[in-house]
Amino acid sequence: MSSDVPLVVPEVNATDLKTHRGIIANPNCCAAILVVPLWPIHRKVRIRRVVVSTYQSVSGAGAQAMAELEEQARAIVEGRTPQAKVFPHPIANNLFSHNSAIESNGYNGEENKIVDETRKILHAPDLRVIPTCVRVPVPRAHSESVLLDLEESLSADEARALLAQAPGIRVVDDAPSGRFPMPMDASGELDVLVGRVRNAPGDNKSLAMFICGDQLLKGAAWNAVQIAEELIR
Amino acid sequence: MSSDVPLVVPEVNATDLKTHRGIIANPNCCAAILVVPLWPIHRKVRIRRVVVSTYQSVSGAGAQAMAELEEQARAIVEGRTPQAKVFPHPIANNLFSHNSAIESNGYNGEENKIVDETRKILHAPDLRVIPTCVRVPVPRAHSESVLLDLEESLSADEARALLAQAPGIRVVDDAPSGRFPMPMDASGELDVLVGRVRNAPGDNKSLAMFICGDQLLKGAAWNAVQIAEELIR
Repeated sequence: MSSDVPLVVPEVNATDLKTHRGIIANPNCCAAILVVPLWPIHRKVRIRRVVVSTYQSVSGAGAQAMAELEEQARAIVEGRTPQAKVFPHPIANNLFSHNSAIESNGYNGEENKIVDETRKILHAPDLRVIPTCVRVPVPRAHSESVLLDLEESLSADEARALLAQAPGIRVVDDAPSGRFPMPMDASGELDVLVGRVRNAPGDNKSLAMFICGDQLLKGAAWNAVQIAEELIR
Repeated sequence: MSSDVPLVVPEVNATDLKTHRGIIANPNCCAAILVVPLWPIHRKVRIRRVVVSTYQSVSGAGAQAMAELEEQARAIVEGRTPQAKVFPHPIANNLFSHNSAIESNGYNGEENKIVDETRKILHAPDLRVIPTCVRVPVPRAHSESVLLDLEESLSADEARALLAQAPGIRVVDDAPSGRFPMPMDASGELDVLVGRVRNAPGDNKSLAMFICGDQLLKGAAWNAVQIAEELIR
């Protein structure tokens, strides 16, 4: 086993921790949020492929990045030209492909981490993962638009029931009131919010969902606490 | 032929216009931007399935929505609580699933328009399209993260060459400088910006890209001008 198996899904990774010797790394924040709803689905019907597009808040890049969004927003309100220092491009009123370097396979560093860590955490080395990482002008909480291709059929209702029973998830999927996961609701939440659960049109072997999680909590500090708790159990 | 065939891809839709009698509708703004890079790919290798997640600017909802984003940004800068009137939720510092009503198949009105109109414009009634529409705090220009499953292999380099020759497209795909399509660059542009062109990891029958287009131009006014030009030709 590799030296950096993270705990994200307690049911899977608690065993990793028991047999593990060495450093335990906290995973990439997008992968940590993504695998929470993937696990109950994968356990039931096996996921063949994950297509994920992220809407990543600036707080993933630290406090200076949060201050930069705030200062750029102030500049726009006051009629000044926003200055980019932390990020390579203005982020207020804009969005851009995640600024980690593009690697030899055409994916950037953030995207390749999502591929590698999702496979590792789910113990699914052959899982196909196709990520696109995008930074958006949101201060906190990452959102992800997810499409899963499954080995077997699973209706949206069955998926929603599985997700509602899974630990670390709050299903927010209220079509009549138009309430779905939003970063403003996910900020400060320990749970990952999951909604817009639906099959591909006419195809119950594909499942789409939209998720939001506070990457400062589930994606970082809270997950580290969960690892520590599991270690002393 | 239906009574609302739009012109988006001149090569395909010019014939539609010649044989058409009745009202000509401008298409949904996301579909109009999406089909521009899809057509040169589809003509070469046939697209089986399109997975698209949108990052839609507020201007798609009109001038009042643009003013609402501006006023909410000002409220946040001044320490007041932002008020949502045009949209159902605050949009500044936030994002949310497109607020059109969810229909019986689990997709909202905007998403179903993308499915229907992409098929219609490309003359591909069986094309599978899986959209997720999200409103983001950007004043102008829509972005879309796109994954295409193809009938035949097509390398990213071949795809980039096809896109670079196609009308209405500007390829912005400069990994060394980290320059890819952004709404701030697409605003006011007649062309659709296309970048992050890459195959799925280890799979040349899937192709990902990230696109930005000014939905006030290609998605609306400019496209209407193109229709009119084609009619008087």
